[in-house]
Amino acid sequence: MANTYDFGLVGLGVMGRNFILNVADNGFTAFGNDLDEEKVNALIAEGGNTDKVNATTDAAEFVAGLTSPRKIMLLVPAGKVVDIVIDSLLPHLDKGDIIIDGGNSFFTDTDRREAYLKEKGINFFGAGVSGGAKGARKGPSIMPGGSREAYQYVKPIFEAVSAKYNGEPCVTYLGPKSAGNYVKMVHNGIEYGLMQLTSEIYDLLKKAGNLTNEELHETYAQWNAGRLQSFLVEITSEIFEQKDELSDGHLVDKILDKAKQKGTGKWTSQNAMDLGIPVPTIDVAVSMREISALKDERIKADELYDRPNVESVVKASLVSKAEQALYFAFIITYAQGMHQLADASKEYGYELELGEIAKIWRAGCIIRAALLADITEAFQADESLQNLLLSPSFVEKVKETVGAARELVAFGAANGIPLPGLSNALTYFDAYTSSRLPLNLIQAQRDYFGSHTYERLDRDGIFHTEWEE
Amino acid sequence: MANTYDFGLVGLGVMGRNFILNVADNGFTAFGNDLDEEKVNALIAEGGNTDKVNATTDAAEFVAGLTSPRKIMLLVPAGKVVDIVIDSLLPHLDKGDIIIDGGNSFFTDTDRREAYLKEKGINFFGAGVSGGAKGARKGPSIMPGGSREAYQYVKPIFEAVSAKYNGEPCVTYLGPKSAGNYVKMVHNGIEYGLMQLTSEIYDLLKKAGNLTNEELHETYAQWNAGRLQSFLVEITSEIFEQKDELSDGHLVDKILDKAKQKGTGKWTSQNAMDLGIPVPTIDVAVSMREISALKDERIKADELYDRPNVESVVKASLVSKAEQALYFAFIITYAQGMHQLADASKEYGYELELGEIAKIWRAGCIIRAALLADITEAFQADESLQNLLLSPSFVEKVKETVGAARELVAFGAANGIPLPGLSNALTYFDAYTSSRLPLNLIQAQRDYFGSHTYERLDRDGIFHTEWEE
Repeated sequence: MANTYDFGLVGLGVMGRNFILNVADNGFTAFGNDLDEEKVNALIAEGGNTDKVNATTDAAEFVAGLTSPRKIMLLVPAGKVVDIVIDSLLPHLDKGDIIIDGGNSFFTDTDRREAYLKEKGINFFGAGVSGGAKGARKGPSIMPGGSREAYQYVKPIFEAVSAKYNGEPCVTYLGPKSAGNYVKMVHNGIEYGLMQLTSEIYDLLKKAGNLTNEELHETYAQWNAGRLQSFLVEITSEIFEQKDELSDGHLVDKILDKAKQKGTGKWTSQNAMDLGIPVPTIDVAVSMREISALKDERIKADELYDRPNVESVVKASLVSKAEQALYFAFIITYAQGMHQLADASKEYGYELELGEIAKIWRAGCIIRAALLADITEAFQADESLQNLLLSPSFVEKVKETVGAARELVAFGAANGIPLPGLSNALTYFDAYTSSRLPLNLIQAQRDYFGSHTYERLDRDGIFHTEWEE
Repeated sequence: MANTYDFGLVGLGVMGRNFILNVADNGFTAFGNDLDEEKVNALIAEGGNTDKVNATTDAAEFVAGLTSPRKIMLLVPAGKVVDIVIDSLLPHLDKGDIIIDGGNSFFTDTDRREAYLKEKGINFFGAGVSGGAKGARKGPSIMPGGSREAYQYVKPIFEAVSAKYNGEPCVTYLGPKSAGNYVKMVHNGIEYGLMQLTSEIYDLLKKAGNLTNEELHETYAQWNAGRLQSFLVEITSEIFEQKDELSDGHLVDKILDKAKQKGTGKWTSQNAMDLGIPVPTIDVAVSMREISALKDERIKADELYDRPNVESVVKASLVSKAEQALYFAFIITYAQGMHQLADASKEYGYELELGEIAKIWRAGCIIRAALLADITEAFQADESLQNLLLSPSFVEKVKETVGAARELVAFGAANGIPLPGLSNALTYFDAYTSSRLPLNLIQAQRDYFGSHTYERLDRDGIFHTEWEE
């Protein structure tokens, strides 16, 4: 059985099994490995033909069963498990073999592993995979980073299994070292922002427009047929239709409002701060998940404070403004994420091409959206574009929709409906487009109490003032 | 000359020299150390009597000149310099001697140094010092953490030199390990929030109320005479009065609107995210400094977009609402910071008493404010208070002022005046006081695309649904 399978995969959870079946669908043979015999057997059963799809609990047998150079993908939980799996494979590998971490590993871990494996002659890729279980089966977006030379061995398989947008594969070589994991991290940060926005707009439509779940379903479905077309808007529409199996009514109304997180959104915000790049829509999406977790405190606080009565509004007008505002805020969220990628590319030497990244996000991944075709074009038209808001085609889109964002932020503030994602998208926009900001005062304060000095508008140099009290 | 000085200090910049002179004013003898002979001479000259205040460039002579156990404070830049100075002192120290890092060291660095020095029998304190150069001279707020036993040796000096609030010293033993640096870090995070708020309200008053610098001076001065009384409001008032020496007019109008940062605000936000505690007002204060730094991009963006014409408003009404909104947002900012401290105390074993922390912030430090007397009382009345917003005395203050915050956020959104700090204070409030949030949708989305499961409102357990498309 030695040296017969084209592709190896460790970690046979739903994602891993689906990915392997996808590989097999595309004409490659694949070999799976997992310590859990049940998962191994499940894959063998699902595969149906062990000449094409096989699996084993034995690492040595697994490695021995792969063609050279071996291409071994890991779909295991990020963290120590990745290191453990790597070390369990190492004794069986040959120089030139390739390990691909397909999980959401923190990018500095990937850099560490890449250096560690390079010494041993093993090529290491960090390749973010987005699309969930279904994406893994039908075509995900794949974001690989690592050795450009070794990518040739992985490329045919990844291009075959990936999602396609107008026939173009949603995978490309992104850059050296942890470029792939970094891009996937920011993808997830953007995802946090978009999810927060869809959820707060739902709150607004429900509280101010009294939309039923059926109407919410219709509304998001209509939006998904237009410029807001995107995976998240699409599934949101479907979520509102889902009936509850355990009681009457719709499932969405029965789900506890405490949102969990696995860390990639938080990492995006934290690393953006290290880079000095503002991503406040993503930051506040992280904050809102945290606030949601404080359910007991929220119940106590709710009893202590009154809430304004929500003004009644014309439903059709509200829905129209919500569509515009959501479109505006989606643009701002992508703009923040792309800005972060541009800066990270310089800081970490990734040499990212933002147009290529937007391109492979057009299908397969969770943040896929019609907007990404426009974003691809914007960065292809101007590779040095500093911010999406400076792209001529986006100026028009933003001008057309920012008015609705203004109205809804004002409405939410007046009526006690929290729209933190939209608010932060708007204040980001208003600040980013201000040639003058009041932070001259902050520099004055810093110089006043800490002698931190300041610069001037009218001449070069560094200044300090002995401020009069 | 051996063993004659009560207190040693390394790092004779303005802060260090001022701190030593303060020590000497309070009847203790002090010995300074710096590699820079000019600074050494400056201190000797300022001290006037080398029996009371002396200094040297020689580390051995410096250490030999201190009474036992030696109390040596470092006021040097955070980072590697601290380690270098520690290692240069070590050969000359005896067991039981005390090193106090008075800088803004990152708390995990302090934990590392404390463990390193403990092995060598040296007591190490991380003691945040706030109050700027003037505070160091006249009485700062000091936030020491480290060995409770060793604190007895430091206590008399720190209590003497610290600021006093109604005769009570603004210093107390805060907790083990890096408790002091952590508390100082969050102090600075709150400071970022308050500074952002004072600056955006200035923008609003100027753009919507057309207040002149003289009127701004008067306004902030009046506010400082009321419930907003605070160091930052006070100096803001003074800043508006300062004339420019290099041209006509007021200095504030000549200062470049790019705000710098030294990292403590960023660390506060990043660590709050690690803890899962929402501090969105602080987060967005960090973002705004970052946006301010993008001056060239802002100038380009400003040319591409129109801005709404600002509605004219009644000046007196605007000023009154601004005062209320600023008070509201100050409360929210302190609430977020205290919340972070409460959680960090559990996570890192600091055993912090929040009432004691508020108490030592009432005078001397940059965030000192009349509000801190109320915050002290709130935490003294209920040591297990989870959030300031749940304190009965604060419920009244917030109810009275949140209406103005709603009006101004709405006004800023409609008129293109970015009020990100105030917006985030308001959305934080509206979310924190909501027993139901729309994040049930986010959990539905996560389960839909990633099988991440969800909880239910109506029964216990973990659920997953095969969502219909």
